[in-house]
Amino acid sequence: SNDVKEYENYFGMTLLDRRSDKRTDSKWLTKKQSHPTTVYILFSNLSPLVTLGGGIDSSQQPEVKLCRLYHKDVEQCLNKTEECTLIFLGVELLQNLAAACNGRVLQEDEEDGLVAWFALSIDSTSAEKFKQKHEDCYFLHPPMPALLQLPEKEAGVVAQARSVLAWHDRYQFCPTCGSTTKTEEGGYKKTCLKEDCPSLQGVHNTSYPRVDPVVIMQVIHPDGNHCLLGRQKRFPPGMFTCLAGFVEPGETIEDAVRREVEEEAGVKVGHVQYVSCQPWPMPSSLMIGCLAVAVSTEIKVDKNEIEDARWFTREQVVEVLIKGNQRSFFVPPSRAIAHQLIKHWIGMNANL
Amino acid sequence: SNDVKEYENYFGMTLLDRRSDKRTDSKWLTKKQSHPTTVYILFSNLSPLVTLGGGIDSSQQPEVKLCRLYHKDVEQCLNKTEECTLIFLGVELLQNLAAACNGRVLQEDEEDGLVAWFALSIDSTSAEKFKQKHEDCYFLHPPMPALLQLPEKEAGVVAQARSVLAWHDRYQFCPTCGSTTKTEEGGYKKTCLKEDCPSLQGVHNTSYPRVDPVVIMQVIHPDGNHCLLGRQKRFPPGMFTCLAGFVEPGETIEDAVRREVEEEAGVKVGHVQYVSCQPWPMPSSLMIGCLAVAVSTEIKVDKNEIEDARWFTREQVVEVLIKGNQRSFFVPPSRAIAHQLIKHWIGMNANL
Ligand SMILES: Nc1ncnc2c1ncn2[C@@H]1O[C@H](COP(=O)(O)O)[C@@H](O)[C@H]1O
Ligand SMILES: Nc1ncnc2c1ncn2[C@@H]1O[C@H](COP(=O)(O)O)[C@@H](O)[C@H]1O
Repeated sequence: SNDVKEYENYFGMTLLDRRSDKRTDSKWLTKKQSHPTTVYILFSNLSPLVTLGGGIDSSQQPEVKLCRLYHKDVEQCLNKTEECTLIFLGVELLQNLAAACNGRVLQEDEEDGLVAWFALSIDSTSAEKFKQKHEDCYFLHPPMPALLQLPEKEAGVVAQARSVLAWHDRYQFCPTCGSTTKTEEGGYKKTCLKEDCPSLQGVHNTSYPRVDPVVIMQVIHPDGNHCLLGRQKRFPPGMFTCLAGFVEPGETIEDAVRREVEEEAGVKVGHVQYVSCQPWPMPSSLMIGCLAVAVSTEIKVDKNEIEDARWFTREQVVEVLIKGNQRSFFVPPSRAIAHQLIKHWIGMNANL
Repeated sequence: SNDVKEYENYFGMTLLDRRSDKRTDSKWLTKKQSHPTTVYILFSNLSPLVTLGGGIDSSQQPEVKLCRLYHKDVEQCLNKTEECTLIFLGVELLQNLAAACNGRVLQEDEEDGLVAWFALSIDSTSAEKFKQKHEDCYFLHPPMPALLQLPEKEAGVVAQARSVLAWHDRYQFCPTCGSTTKTEEGGYKKTCLKEDCPSLQGVHNTSYPRVDPVVIMQVIHPDGNHCLLGRQKRFPPGMFTCLAGFVEPGETIEDAVRREVEEEAGVKVGHVQYVSCQPWPMPSSLMIGCLAVAVSTEIKVDKNEIEDARWFTREQVVEVLIKGNQRSFFVPPSRAIAHQLIKHWIGMNANL
């Protein structure tokens, strides 16, 4: 139907349907783990296993692709439950839609045709063995900015998997009482093992993965023809990008934008407008992209937070962004939300 | 100047400048703690100490106001550091602006004129004593929906304080190794006390308060003249509101909206548009309000998540919202973001 088609357009960027209802269906999860169509993506030290796609003599930059493995490939690792963490990621979206459209009610044990995806984190010894067996594969390291080379759909899956795995890595003990925890619900819940821990009464965020909201903003000069970009010491030389910072407890997105711009660059911001967002799995941020209109222009850089911040003219930015002229400075690659925000501003008043 | 004036308009809703730079200035913090102008707001069991404002014979609902206490009022509690938690909230915004405009560089020990605010959480014994001494004050309990009765500016301060205090309550141990922690940076950081804990290398979110992004959405029927509202079992009878749910790791705001509406009500959503947000300190959510356009209409309620969901006509909503006619159903009070989202939709096509 037309409805389904329009819906698919919106889901074009998503590979998986998370099917969170299946997280508590341990029978289904166990069956899918050994099903031959089930896809596994591998992680070692929070780096995903990838391979190079596309021809070598292609004029484009070679694309990095996730390695899709099957039960037979990971069977040995799966048995060592001590050293590995398994996360249920969801089912392939198109199969899921097809199954839903089919309409027939399935028998209890009947195969539902859904292609399940899992993330599996393995220890370094198993990782070494893996690389020897699969010569064309390697663990993407350091993950940033390499993650931005993944196809958009796969980047979303990696963001999901890496965030949850990083949470398991860092949140092994109950923050309320310090006891050990057990993992449940396909990897999305940790429950305290101490019988009388207060975290076992009611619903608490201690049991669920963190998502840290971050504001990232393209700050526009009051004249409309300059934007404010900054750089941190740890950036590659010449790179400038949008200012950013964590949203604090009790703060709106708009207030966080105003506070961060004033803290980092001493510039006062008035109107703030949401543009778009991007999950950023380092370890588990949600980058909330905004346009922000400055109401003051003098820059006072807080050297504890950033190294430099400057007003750039529209022409300078266009040159770097569209013409790829990187003599004076450069901005993050096109898949980064900062790039998209800067581009959004350039496109806004189209008299280039 | 005009700039400052425009800026103040935007900050009209904010009472405090957080001055996060002061969190690491322990000398300043100590001095401000005993300064006579410093304001303390009190909490017991995460409930703020309040009093009733406005005349009794006022036709309006009596307004609940935060009790502002001073050093002399809390001196005794402050000395019992074991049982109390102290959070630096910021400085009063207007004083801060005035000081900045003054421009003169202060001597190191000179009083800067800034009015600092702290939140102080006390144990139940001290709380009892307090209520006896200050007869017109009481701890607002249960906090929800009473928090919505606070003046908007104070609600922001309470959201900040309550979120951070709830974090201290629930995150007393290092999630990475299970050891005890110490509090730093005016109450905004917890550091593991175990010398070789991995959380001490680099920057980790285990040390900082949580902010959980939640999407809350006004879902519009494809015909533009109905909206989807639902209710949970625990709601007061007759109350319906916007659907909502936590943003998951690796997910965009827009995808979270689509996933939650489909999970809870079986309705498919296409276009999603950000409207506004509201911090919600139960315990520490950031409610991200959106308009969402449905591309399917059949409702299949997931009884595990909600009790009911229905399409309401524009006329039904207008009646309840604007005319206050509560015969058939009602929606949350005007300070709740759900109310604002519903109202935003009503205002959108103004041919009522
Ligand atoms: N950070 C979180 N805090 C509490 N519950 C969460 C969190 N993230 C996901 N959840 C899930 O959301 C459910 C509660 O949702 P709600 O009814 O919206 O309060 C819980 O039962 C969890 O399954
Ligand atoms: N959830 C968080 N994770 C890491 N750092 C945080 C968090 N919240 C606040 N911060 C602060 O942000 C600083 C790092 O910011 P950034 O340079 O943006 O990575 C840290 O030094 C902390 O002071």
